[in-house]
Amino acid sequence: MIQKYPSVLLENAVNEFAKLPGVGRKTALRLVLHMLRQSENSVESFSSAILTLKKEVKYCKSCYNISDDDICPICANPARNKSQICVVENIKEVMAIENTSQFKGLYHVLGGIISPIDGIGPGDLQIESLVDRISRGGIDEVILALSTTMEGDTTNFYIYKKLAPFDVKVTMIARGISIGDEIEYADEITLGRSIINRTLFNESFNL
Amino acid sequence: MIQKYPSVLLENAVNEFAKLPGVGRKTALRLVLHMLRQSENSVESFSSAILTLKKEVKYCKSCYNISDDDICPICANPARNKSQICVVENIKEVMAIENTSQFKGLYHVLGGIISPIDGIGPGDLQIESLVDRISRGGIDEVILALSTTMEGDTTNFYIYKKLAPFDVKVTMIARGISIGDEIEYADEITLGRSIINRTLFNESFNL
Repeated sequence: MIQKYPSVLLENAVNEFAKLPGVGRKTALRLVLHMLRQSENSVESFSSAILTLKKEVKYCKSCYNISDDDICPICANPARNKSQICVVENIKEVMAIENTSQFKGLYHVLGGIISPIDGIGPGDLQIESLVDRISRGGIDEVILALSTTMEGDTTNFYIYKKLAPFDVKVTMIARGISIGDEIEYADEITLGRSIINRTLFNESFNL
Repeated sequence: MIQKYPSVLLENAVNEFAKLPGVGRKTALRLVLHMLRQSENSVESFSSAILTLKKEVKYCKSCYNISDDDICPICANPARNKSQICVVENIKEVMAIENTSQFKGLYHVLGGIISPIDGIGPGDLQIESLVDRISRGGIDEVILALSTTMEGDTTNFYIYKKLAPFDVKVTMIARGISIGDEIEYADEITLGRSIINRTLFNESFNL
């Protein structure tokens, strides 16, 4: 369907919004017309927020999380356990894990996972800097928390091999049946792994 | 769920994106992180496209459609039938009707519909300017193409009364069973109206 826009300015704005992931041209038009109904101040703060972020964003020099300073609030927090490092793909996973309040150590944000099809190799990720952190000592455990996909597993194994020379425990987050899920409908691989990796009943509930 | 952002700049950008209709905080974060992965040039053109539109947008002085010039391309087109005016709520409806290629007249964009609950009265819409256009003569037919909602009907009746003093035919777009819809599942009101407003079989197909 060829959409004819009555204004080039409008068309440009729709084109830009339509570049966002999951935003088609109809949604883009709806968003742009919504912005048009807002005050000029609102549009200015929208417009400048994203540009300022892009121009001034910093990454923590230790864990590569997004940060306003050279060291992110998590790494700078003296209450965190500095002997544990949780390796994640991106800042979204940091936020998800932080929301559980179950982890008090530090993070290491890879900035992606190894994916040959997308042209992303180990050199494009923060893996060397992870090895550097471990080599400096003081780390007891590295927890791998990547997605259970072929790319995630590849990255897990790559990091595992890179860390083999060091005296550090490498663990990965538990895979099993989601809480609230029915066993009947679980996929075979997850169900199989949940049996292999079964945990002591009393330990699971701190009895 | 309280999300803690590691960066105020990031949080600002997420807040701005989350103001868009239909965009929650999770989607906003996804969109912002996507923008962060783009080049600074890309973010600049995104940022400036919406701001330029807001600052420089014009509305056609005749039909109030969005336009880059004082008169929009539709009003300026000598091939259009200047004796027919189709009244629509917004520019989205102009684009939808233009896509059908079934209308060769001009438009009049109200900029909304009468909605007391949202504090929108006739004075907030381009109704006086429509009456002005009609009063200048040369218009044979006004086609009302507003939504079939209480607000749409209120606006239809208001315009109908305003146009009563003029020698102009006021029509409205046909309401009936959508093409491809099964009659069994049509709602009663639509089905009832489709019987009342039945059309001659041969005329419907230009036989």
